[in-house]
Amino acid sequence: MNKNEKLRIVPLGGLGEVGKNMMAYEYGEHILVVDAGLMFPDNDMLGIDYIIPDFEYLLDKTSRISGIIITHGHEDHIGAVPHLLSQVSAPVYATPLTRGLIEVKLARNSLSGKADLRTVQAGEMIQVGPFQVELFHVCHSIPDSVGLGISTPAGLIVHSGDYKFDQTPVDNWPTDFAKLAEFSQRGVTVLLADSTNAERPGWTPSERVIDPALDEVFVNAPGRVIIATFASLISRMQQVANAAVHRKRKLAFVGMSMVDNAKIARTLGYLDVPNETLVSLEEALNLPVKEVALMCTGSQGEPSSIVGRLSTGTNRQFDIRAGDTVVLSSHPIPGNEETIFKTINRLFQRGATVIYDAISPIHVSGHASSEEQKLLLNLVRPKYFIPIHGELRHLKRHAALAGQVGIPQENILVVENGQVVELSEGKLSLAERVPGGYVFVEGQSIGEIGKDIIREREQLSRAGILIITATLDKYSNRLIKEPEIITRGFISPEDSEDLIPMVRRKVTDIVNSGLDSEKTITDAVKSLLHNETKRRPMIFVTVTKA
Amino acid sequence: MNKNEKLRIVPLGGLGEVGKNMMAYEYGEHILVVDAGLMFPDNDMLGIDYIIPDFEYLLDKTSRISGIIITHGHEDHIGAVPHLLSQVSAPVYATPLTRGLIEVKLARNSLSGKADLRTVQAGEMIQVGPFQVELFHVCHSIPDSVGLGISTPAGLIVHSGDYKFDQTPVDNWPTDFAKLAEFSQRGVTVLLADSTNAERPGWTPSERVIDPALDEVFVNAPGRVIIATFASLISRMQQVANAAVHRKRKLAFVGMSMVDNAKIARTLGYLDVPNETLVSLEEALNLPVKEVALMCTGSQGEPSSIVGRLSTGTNRQFDIRAGDTVVLSSHPIPGNEETIFKTINRLFQRGATVIYDAISPIHVSGHASSEEQKLLLNLVRPKYFIPIHGELRHLKRHAALAGQVGIPQENILVVENGQVVELSEGKLSLAERVPGGYVFVEGQSIGEIGKDIIREREQLSRAGILIITATLDKYSNRLIKEPEIITRGFISPEDSEDLIPMVRRKVTDIVNSGLDSEKTITDAVKSLLHNETKRRPMIFVTVTKA
Repeated sequence: MNKNEKLRIVPLGGLGEVGKNMMAYEYGEHILVVDAGLMFPDNDMLGIDYIIPDFEYLLDKTSRISGIIITHGHEDHIGAVPHLLSQVSAPVYATPLTRGLIEVKLARNSLSGKADLRTVQAGEMIQVGPFQVELFHVCHSIPDSVGLGISTPAGLIVHSGDYKFDQTPVDNWPTDFAKLAEFSQRGVTVLLADSTNAERPGWTPSERVIDPALDEVFVNAPGRVIIATFASLISRMQQVANAAVHRKRKLAFVGMSMVDNAKIARTLGYLDVPNETLVSLEEALNLPVKEVALMCTGSQGEPSSIVGRLSTGTNRQFDIRAGDTVVLSSHPIPGNEETIFKTINRLFQRGATVIYDAISPIHVSGHASSEEQKLLLNLVRPKYFIPIHGELRHLKRHAALAGQVGIPQENILVVENGQVVELSEGKLSLAERVPGGYVFVEGQSIGEIGKDIIREREQLSRAGILIITATLDKYSNRLIKEPEIITRGFISPEDSEDLIPMVRRKVTDIVNSGLDSEKTITDAVKSLLHNETKRRPMIFVTVTKA
Repeated sequence: MNKNEKLRIVPLGGLGEVGKNMMAYEYGEHILVVDAGLMFPDNDMLGIDYIIPDFEYLLDKTSRISGIIITHGHEDHIGAVPHLLSQVSAPVYATPLTRGLIEVKLARNSLSGKADLRTVQAGEMIQVGPFQVELFHVCHSIPDSVGLGISTPAGLIVHSGDYKFDQTPVDNWPTDFAKLAEFSQRGVTVLLADSTNAERPGWTPSERVIDPALDEVFVNAPGRVIIATFASLISRMQQVANAAVHRKRKLAFVGMSMVDNAKIARTLGYLDVPNETLVSLEEALNLPVKEVALMCTGSQGEPSSIVGRLSTGTNRQFDIRAGDTVVLSSHPIPGNEETIFKTINRLFQRGATVIYDAISPIHVSGHASSEEQKLLLNLVRPKYFIPIHGELRHLKRHAALAGQVGIPQENILVVENGQVVELSEGKLSLAERVPGGYVFVEGQSIGEIGKDIIREREQLSRAGILIITATLDKYSNRLIKEPEIITRGFISPEDSEDLIPMVRRKVTDIVNSGLDSEKTITDAVKSLLHNETKRRPMIFVTVTKA
């Protein structure tokens, strides 16, 4: 070990936010990237499709990236892989299901065959430059999830990934306690662990608690059962399939992502649905309603999802009928509550019975709650602790929990994306800041839409717009014709009957009095509109002299 | 009793939504209005200030309105009183604190002295036309709240208002169980009861549970304590004042609504703060930080509130300092979660410790949970039940609870705003629908902004706008000068350097080839922009011939 060399921990995503997780570990000339996820926009990020990590930091160091490890197949860990691989060529290591889901994603981005994907198994060890990485199994809401034990010349790092300590997981494969204990015996220098549920007291329930609730729905539903969840929640698919088999309903997966993911999970042996239970949507729609279960997306009320469309009566292949039971098997992601509740209300209005997590245990979290987080800390007994995966409030709370189990305050580092941390001679300290912000993806634009543009959109939406075009005779400086006025989002057609002529008169008066600057007109009209309506639309004036 | 006369129950607000509660009871020629509240806009109601009930139904019947009773002083029950009184002159009955808060509101709307306000006390009976109304005390998160027993020729109606069964309320005045039991003995025909917390199992905790949590904050805070809550949460003010007295901190109320409400509550004897504890903000800012508590608004993260401004560093009189402890004493109203969590994260970034309801019992709901709702049903034993105050999901859930305690399904009516219900010869049935929608208030506009305008704002905000002004020679039909182009919310200045000249060329080509219609130009530019950016801004074209 070169005494001058340090381990650098570079958080590029997921610290200070929930989603788009991404971390880089650097030692000497080598960089190991862990995860590359996306996140969905907040309500105030108008028009944005999704957000990926800002990995500008890596772009002049791509030749030093020795490997990329993806801990599991959820969007917030794999969603930016196509973006990363379009700029970086390094081997991508993933367990079989995770690899399968990455392949589905690469195929949709026409990147199949261009990536160097390498299958690894939980329990294996891989060497990535100076990093000796042991992948250990963790329970999460998708099978085949792993955490990482990363041995470096600077010490042993444990990176939890998303995890929970489910003692009775659906796939009967609990988190690898023995490996965690072994790490502890070897001495862990830094633990980086999932903070998502740091605010939740106690212990996240086992996924098994869902089984009786689902079974009750399958028994009591007078008609079809329509279960909505995330397309990547493979273990929920298994639970629904089990209920369908048990209660003799046929099951159809509906929607491209749900169908694709179910197919890859079945092919790879992570989802067991008997052939005689699985039917196509078309077949399902022709069966007696009591014999049908449909599984689709839309548990967050997304307007373009199948449940979103069912709630507004705009789904193509089928509609909600009285007697349908719709199960929303997920917990609201913060910011989505309003949309979800509107969707629930609309489904009720259409005659469905709606079962959702506030009234029935049809969902449990895939993330450790605070008692589990304390257990991980006590199992691993790290010298240093860095909470990851969460908004600042989650990281702060996780840090407080670490304090409660005896990690000294000065050995806990709460940092946000872009704050580099260095481990040198057994001591962890803050280093420089690097870019770590949001990269907005919208249409073909990646990173070109910035906060300024979002702010302009917000201004446009606040009170609408009014566009004035005035054409003047270049000799007389008088209007050649009446000013043209267009409005959007400002005033109703009825009200505009009075107001627009007033605006036109005002513009005419100003121009004809010799004050024809666009600014003068804008200010005068702004004040007229505010006096008349107490509202402030954006005003755009074009004066042309012809 | 005229056998042909019916009691009509006309829900004008609060059924199918949380907020803007308003109900009309009609018998013969007389109308009794209960409550007139406002609600705040959903995230997708762009630009709207607030929403009031659509009481168009009443406008051609104003002379028949015999009285207006306000059950308590929260915004969702009194917020539309100024709007109602600008069109209706009828006596307004309210308990002293509720009346005081209405007076504050009328004064702000320059309506003081114009309203016929009448003070009533819980336990009193008033006659409003044929309606004999007994006001009974209920616990809620504001003192002096009442429910109503309304004796009519058609039967006894119990209207709960907002309530909970707190056995140890802060003001030591529990809900009037005896009166409810008495109603039950007389025989209740219809119960209308608050559904807000129908999804919550069990029993809402007593407000007393907040005391130890607050006290812990007051003891442990190394600096100032800043408590944010709703300005109308008078009982929370009392609890904070008690903690301040006990822990020897001076207390300042901050912000106009907080100051006004505290003043009226103290004047009327509903808030007990010793003179030596109460200080002005200016005095508080000059005291040692360990001796200060500030109480202000902003617990929902509202950007314009004091806590909202503190979180973004834009508050005028003081800033967050390291060592401040900020307590958000409320539960997120659905739709506000994202804003609240951003505010919490920003306060942490500024060095404050933040205490909020997810991590400490510093707030309890003012509404009955499902076991209390069942208790009310069992106490009152109504023949018919109509769940009120809630989104459809809450009403449905409350209806299910009523079924559990033995109300026959056919005697439970789940209706939304505008669905009139008639009680005739002891039988309750659906009647016609009347207007019952949203009336948007924005600036001086009341009801002029409709869904179409909101939809236009949404379109403006999705991908921004591009404005093209082309001026043509009216003889040659050729451009007199280059087309003018303005964009907002669409493209960054850097990207526009390439794109805008392309648009200009495209417009020039089209016009000079003789196709100068605004539609042709719009379509061509739309397709150019979509090819180049995969985005679809709104395009506005004005062609002028000069």
